Parts: sequence; C-alpha cells; structure tokens
Amino acid sequence: MSNSHEELYKELLERLKEISIIGACEGLLGWDERTYMPRAGSKSRADQISYLAGMAHKKFTDPKIGEILSELEKSPLMNDPLSDSAVNIRETRYSYDKSVKIPQKLVEEISHTTTMAQGIWAEARKESNYPKFLPWLEKIIKLELDLAGCLGYKKEAYDALLDNYEPGATHESVGKVFEDFRKELVDLAAAIMNSKKRADISILEREYPVDRQAMFGQSGSAAIGFDFHAGRLDVTTHPFCSGIAPGDTRITTRYNPHHFGQAFFGILHESGHGIYDQGLDDAHHGTPRGNSVSLGIHESQSRMWENLVGRSKAFWKHFFPRAQQMFPEALSNVKFEDFYFAINDVRPSFIRVEADEVTYNLHILLRFEIEFAFLKGDLAVKDIPGAWNEKFKKYFGLMPKNDAEGCLQDVHWSAGYIGYFPTYTLGNLYSAQFFAKAKEEIKDLEHQYEIGKYDTLKTWLNKNIHTHGKRYRAENLVQVVTGKPLSHKPLMIYLKTKYGELYGV
Amino acid sequence: MSNSHEELYKELLERLKEISIIGACEGLLGWDERTYMPRAGSKSRADQISYLAGMAHKKFTDPKIGEILSELEKSPLMNDPLSDSAVNIRETRYSYDKSVKIPQKLVEEISHTTTMAQGIWAEARKESNYPKFLPWLEKIIKLELDLAGCLGYKKEAYDALLDNYEPGATHESVGKVFEDFRKELVDLAAAIMNSKKRADISILEREYPVDRQAMFGQSGSAAIGFDFHAGRLDVTTHPFCSGIAPGDTRITTRYNPHHFGQAFFGILHESGHGIYDQGLDDAHHGTPRGNSVSLGIHESQSRMWENLVGRSKAFWKHFFPRAQQMFPEALSNVKFEDFYFAINDVRPSFIRVEADEVTYNLHILLRFEIEFAFLKGDLAVKDIPGAWNEKFKKYFGLMPKNDAEGCLQDVHWSAGYIGYFPTYTLGNLYSAQFFAKAKEEIKDLEHQYEIGKYDTLKTWLNKNIHTHGKRYRAENLVQVVTGKPLSHKPLMIYLKTKYGELYGV
Repeated sequence: MSNSHEELYKELLERLKEISIIGACEGLLGWDERTYMPRAGSKSRADQISYLAGMAHKKFTDPKIGEILSELEKSPLMNDPLSDSAVNIRETRYSYDKSVKIPQKLVEEISHTTTMAQGIWAEARKESNYPKFLPWLEKIIKLELDLAGCLGYKKEAYDALLDNYEPGATHESVGKVFEDFRKELVDLAAAIMNSKKRADISILEREYPVDRQAMFGQSGSAAIGFDFHAGRLDVTTHPFCSGIAPGDTRITTRYNPHHFGQAFFGILHESGHGIYDQGLDDAHHGTPRGNSVSLGIHESQSRMWENLVGRSKAFWKHFFPRAQQMFPEALSNVKFEDFYFAINDVRPSFIRVEADEVTYNLHILLRFEIEFAFLKGDLAVKDIPGAWNEKFKKYFGLMPKNDAEGCLQDVHWSAGYIGYFPTYTLGNLYSAQFFAKAKEEIKDLEHQYEIGKYDTLKTWLNKNIHTHGKRYRAENLVQVVTGKPLSHKPLMIYLKTKYGELYGV
Repeated sequence: MSNSHEELYKELLERLKEISIIGACEGLLGWDERTYMPRAGSKSRADQISYLAGMAHKKFTDPKIGEILSELEKSPLMNDPLSDSAVNIRETRYSYDKSVKIPQKLVEEISHTTTMAQGIWAEARKESNYPKFLPWLEKIIKLELDLAGCLGYKKEAYDALLDNYEPGATHESVGKVFEDFRKELVDLAAAIMNSKKRADISILEREYPVDRQAMFGQSGSAAIGFDFHAGRLDVTTHPFCSGIAPGDTRITTRYNPHHFGQAFFGILHESGHGIYDQGLDDAHHGTPRGNSVSLGIHESQSRMWENLVGRSKAFWKHFFPRAQQMFPEALSNVKFEDFYFAINDVRPSFIRVEADEVTYNLHILLRFEIEFAFLKGDLAVKDIPGAWNEKFKKYFGLMPKNDAEGCLQDVHWSAGYIGYFPTYTLGNLYSAQFFAKAKEEIKDLEHQYEIGKYDTLKTWLNKNIHTHGKRYRAENLVQVVTGKPLSHKPLMIYLKTKYGELYGV
C-alpha cells in the first residue's frame, strides 16, 4: 500500500506542476499585457488569458484531485506534518476545497460585476461622486457575502474573505494586534505632527532624468540581491512583481522625472517581492512547498527592503555618494542629513499610496475597520463616507475635503478585494519582527549596509523564510523564525526609535 | 442533414479556434524568449512551450477532427470550392493528414537530432570543418527521407518536403521556372560585374546612431502601413515577424551603428510580413480562411516592401531628405543619386544573407539544386563542398576560400529545413509578378511614393492577397491576381530595367 501512496503522491505533484506551467504561461501573458502589448491586442489577450485560466481551473477542480487527496490524507505521508508531502497535501486540500466550493456562476457574476464596477468607480472618483458608486458597492458586498457563505467560516463572514489573502488569519487575531498598534501609532503620528522639525522635501522634487533613474534603480536592485540573470525591470503604470517561473521573475516601476523617490523606493519594494520569488525552492516549484506563504509575508519582504533597509541611514551611507554622482545637478550640494530626513519625511496626507512609513498603517487600520463594519452590516453602505471622514479626523487630525480623497481613493473594493487591505499592515508588522530577529542574529548588519553588503540579510531571509515555501502558515512562520507570536511591538519600537530621533519626539 | 453539417462545421471551427488560441500563447512565449526573457528563464520557457505545443498537437490530431472532416467532405458545404467552408475543410484536411501521418517517434527523433546538429554545425562553421558536420547532415537527410516517406509523394521525395513550406509546389513546377530564371540571371550578374560603374557604399558605413535608426525605421514602417496600434518593433539577434493574434503582430530588427541599411531594409522587410498578417481577415482568424497562404507568398510581401518599394528611386524621393535630416553628419553632403546607387549596389559575395537583389537569387538557385541532388542520392553528402564550389564558380565567377563561406554558411540543413530555400526565390518571383500587376492597375503608383503615399498599394494587397487567406493555393493565387501562371519574366524585367540603368548594361 505504501508504494501506491507514493504513486498517488507523484501523480498529485505531476498534476500540480502541469497546472503551474499553465499558470506560468498566463503569468507571461499578463506581464506582457501590462508592459509591451500593442493596444489593439487586448481583445485577443483576454481570450488567451481566460482560456488558460479556465483550463487551469478545470484541471485543479478535477474530482480526481479530491480523490487523491482523500487517499493521501490517510497515508503515512502525513505523519510528519512539516514534511514536504504533508505540506503539499495540506495546502492542496486547502486550495482545492476553496476552488470546488465556489459555484462557477458566482465566479462569473463577481468577475462581471467587478469589471463593470471598476469603470464606474473610476468615473465616480474623478467626479468625487459617491452616490454613483454606491449601488455597485452594495452589489459587490452582497456577492462577497455570498462568496463568504460558500467558503464557510466560524465566526465572521469577513474571516472567509481575509483568509483568501492571508490564510489562517481572522478578524479576531488580526484585529487584536491592529488595535494595540493603532493606539500607540496615533500618538506617535500626533507627536510628529506637533514637532517643529521639518524635512525639506523639495530636494527630492528636482530634476532626476529618467534614464539615470533607471540605471540607479537597477544598480540598487542588483545590489540588494535581485538577480537580473533571472529577472527584469520594466515600466508600467501600476508597478508589480510577477514570479513567472524558475529563472524568470519580473518587476516593474514607473518613473517621475521630477521626483527621486517614487521610482527608487518602488524598485526596492518590487525587488523585495522578487528576491522572495527568486529565493523559493526550485526543486518544489509548482507545488505549495515551493510557493510563497501569503500576501502578508510577501509584503513583509518588499517592505523590509524598501523601508527597513532602503530608508535606513546605513543604506544611504553607501548609496548617497553614488546618488550624488548620478544626479550631480540635483544632489551635489545636498547634505547627507537633509537627504536622509527628506526620504523619511512624515506628514499626514489623505492618499494612502503617497503615505510615509508612520501614517501608512493608519490608512490601513481605518480601511480594515470600515470594511469589517460594512460587511457585517454594522455600517450602512451609504454611511461609509461619513464614517470614513470621522475616523480620518480621529486618526490623522484632518478632514478629507471630498470623497475622491476619502473613501473613493482605492480601487480595491470596486475590484471585490474585501479583506485585502490588512495584508499591507500585516506585511509591515511581519517585516519589523523578522528584521529585529535578523539584527539580533547578524551583529554587524548595519555596518554591512554601510559598505554596500546585503547578501548576509538576503541569505538569512532565503534560509529562514523563502526556502520553506508554504511549510508554515504565516502565523507559525513568525513564531518559528522569531520565537514569538506576531506583535505590534517590533514595528512600534522601530518607528519610535527612528522617528523619535528625526523629529525629537 | 444539412443542419447537422452546419453543426459539425461549427464544431470544427470551434476546435480550430481553440487550437489557434493555444498557438497565440505559444507565439507570445516564443517572441518573449527572443526579446526580453531573462537568460535563466530558458529551461522554464522550454517546458512551457513544449507543453503548449504538445497540447495543440494533441487537439489537432484528435481522431474526432478526422471524423468531422470525412462527414463534411461529403456535404454541400464543399459545393463551391472557393467558399469559406470548402476552403476551411480542404486546408484542414491537408494539415490534418500531414499531422497524423508523422509518427510521434519520428517527430522526436528529428527534433532531438536537429537540436544537436545545430550545435555541431555552429562549431563546424566556426572551424570551417565540413567533415565534422558531415555525419550529422547524413543523419538528417536520412530522417528527412523517412519523413517524406511518411508524408507520401508522387514523383520526388523532395516534393513532400517542399510541400511543407510551399503547399502544392513540386520540384518540377518550381524547377522549370527557376531554370529559365537562372539562365538569364547569370548573364545579368556577369554583365553587372563587368560594368565599370561602381557605387560608393562607404556612404552607408558612416555613423548612424542606433536611437535615430530606431526612430527612422519606425517612421518608415508606419509610413508603408504597419499599424503600431496593433503591433510593435523590438530588437533581436535574428529578426523576425510574429503574427501572434488579431491586433497583435510583432516585428523585430537589429541595429548596426556603422551601417544605414541593415536595420532599415530589415524593418521594411519585416513590416511587409507584418502588413500581411495585419491584413488577414479577423473574422476568419484561427481557421485556414484567415491564415496566410505559404512561406513563398509571405516572403513576396516582405520583399515587395523591402525591395520593389523600399529600394526604388521614387521611395527615396520622399525619404532621402528625411534621412538627411535624421542623420545630418552622415548624409548631408551626399547626393541623391549616390545614395540611391549605394543602396542598390550589386556585387557577388559568398554570403547569402549579405547579398543584393540580383545575386541573392543565384544563392538560392544553387542551394535548390544541391539539396535536391543530395536528397535524391545523386550527390553524395561528402561531395557537397565540391559541388557547391563548382556551381558557385559557374554562377558567380568566384570560388569560396573555405566551407564556412561555402556550404556551411546557413543554419537551414542542420535544422532539418530541406525544401525551405526555394521559398525565398519564389517570394521574389511572386513579388515582382504581383507588383507588375499592381502598377498596371494603379497608374500613378510611383508618383504616390514620391509624395509618401503608400496606402493605395497596401489596400491593393489587402484586397487582392491578404483578405483571401488560404482561399487559393499560391499557384492559383498568382493566376487569379495576375491572370498568368508564375513566370520568371516580371522579376527579370524589373531587374534588367533597374540595374541596366544603374550599371549601363
């Protein structure tokens, strides 16, 4: 019998790998659609992508996979819950059950509705016209509740949705950490706002020619460890990272010739995602054991390189003289301390995507509270703008002038991404907790940055996080790597230390 | 019953369209492999492409397609042999029979052998070491004979192979036209070689900055009618055109900063292919009725724009002043007549891909004769170099110094492409015959070029050639469009007139 289990397991892996090849093709088509595809190709591209997606879905929901899983779950391959086989069986079961639970009709209805809604949302945002978007959001919430119903949940419908992005996370588990975090964060943000110290951010708004930004960005990306033999950097309107297949991870950015940081930190961010994808174990490619843990853990990698490394003083000890060489007109007369302050400027703003390290999380916490409330029915959809503005005033001390810079600013809800926002702040929390541990284990980490050496941290991340694939769920991974459950403290300590120094608070 | 035929026909089209979507995905993966793919991605890419190719092959050789075809062939859908349905049934049958006749084992053996042989060939060419390549070529010839045996043929094994590239063509039909052509062409080439008039080609070898070549090439491509909303131009080592899907046709080139013509005429050439692909009838996309006729007809479109239009005096009346503006350092002091002569320089050379309009065809005729002879067994493989050099001396008046610039120069035979070469000269012959007809019907065509107007010719080609898809086989298409069977005369008249004037012969 054990031989037969081995054979079934082999068949499972073959099926998963076949599906992952289809996924890789789809990945390249998607990358091309956003980078180089000629405009008139979009109809054909939609046909190609939906054909491949349909095929992958069909192959993954094949009842034979369910049968194999049922057999394997009773087998010795599950004995060690952390073995490759147990991880693959557990995580395939998890995804398989989700896939077969959702009726095709609901998938299509969500897809159709959100496609329409995104168009309406874009218009509504332009006109700052919430009532225009209102009926669509109501419809989407209803569909997402249906979806949650199909998926099932123990306590909150919200949990079923959140689980799609951050497997294992619940409103309760996340909410507890967020709540502790928010209390301290609001105070820190307020203290900074009251500080008299102000960075001169005009330094960053000088002329930074795009071709040189591209060279500088690429050199930064390569320096922190993104492998350009196995990856590329291209230009898109909305930057992303796509891990297409082993040896092929692609990141994108957008350049603003009148701003230093948007592209550079964006590139470090996407490079962090890319380094994670490149660090996955190729031997397990196509199976959960060779795949990333969750959106939150992925985001922890991008935020770590973008912020904890990329906005640190030590990093710029090495890079600032190089930036001055690359952009002499803009930077030759700028003092190191002024540059460092400018790239770490904190000021409350209405728009999430423009926010700094401190206030960014307040934007997320607010959205988390709002979306939980409207999904539960505690907040009527028509009352979202009022609730938003009230919270905004409370957390930021400011009142949005209109809904375009308030509750209409993000695409997520119109796309049906309810439960997605928390992964951003989870990413920040994870990143600080991992980073604190790395610093504990690598004594001279900051000194290494000062001399342009980043491979020690990269190797640490490879070993402790990337190479495990989905062996651990996010919650366990944090525990295994840092020896403690997720806490807001490491991030809070990091923020207080860094910004306390900068703002004298 | 007629209703049931309609249903079967609909099913056939659906199957073909599904296969064409897979082909489009494969097309994009192939394009990316040659343009942007990071090097380390090649193993993954090979898996992806072979997966899709295997799937497309499996779907196309499904016995159900054979059954549907058998039913449809007896149906009224075949009544009008030029109807869309009859064309689709006829051409699907043609491809289907070919596909099912070749054993998978032979496909794999050819693929494996030619992959190896191409590596060996590259080394042999580098070392000018024919004996090194000899056993591989012998093996390939044996496999190609097996292939011809599987496919079947009436007179010559060569016909079965040629038919793969130029459906319906035979050694006899092509050989007759080539023979007539060669006799006159050798004389014209000799007369030009004896002429005292010589172009100053150093004009073209000045500094032509790559970025400006790209702009100029793109403007030329757009001017002749390549639609950049539905296409792109990128850089590759070996230029090609890939018609991926409706709205998405991609061409490539390579730039030599010390040569004006290589990229520019290459771009016009690929644009000609692209204009054909963009001119196919989208309503029939994915079926033979919406696909191109043959390699030879495809080549006729690229050669027409590259040579008959792109190297004409009238074309440069419009473009030369623009080239002078774009490349003032290189061209501002150059006279129009000298530039025109330089881009039409004729001189015998050993290397096919560097040849001019006149001698190019002699390179092809020589290869056609050699490959026919070795496939038939009239020429021992070990004697190819001797036969090559002897013919070369006869046609060009020159003797290759070694096999690297003789019979080892082209990749084709090592790749198993026996029967491919003739399509190049067929393309030239078709192009001249079509073009003569177009000039007859569009009285002021040359004047239109002089004012930069090319849409009349493009529309003529769309209407007379592109939109028909595979309605006519190449042979018939020439007859239908020009009222005459294929002949060497239009090309000979064109060459004699143009080069008689340039060289006073």
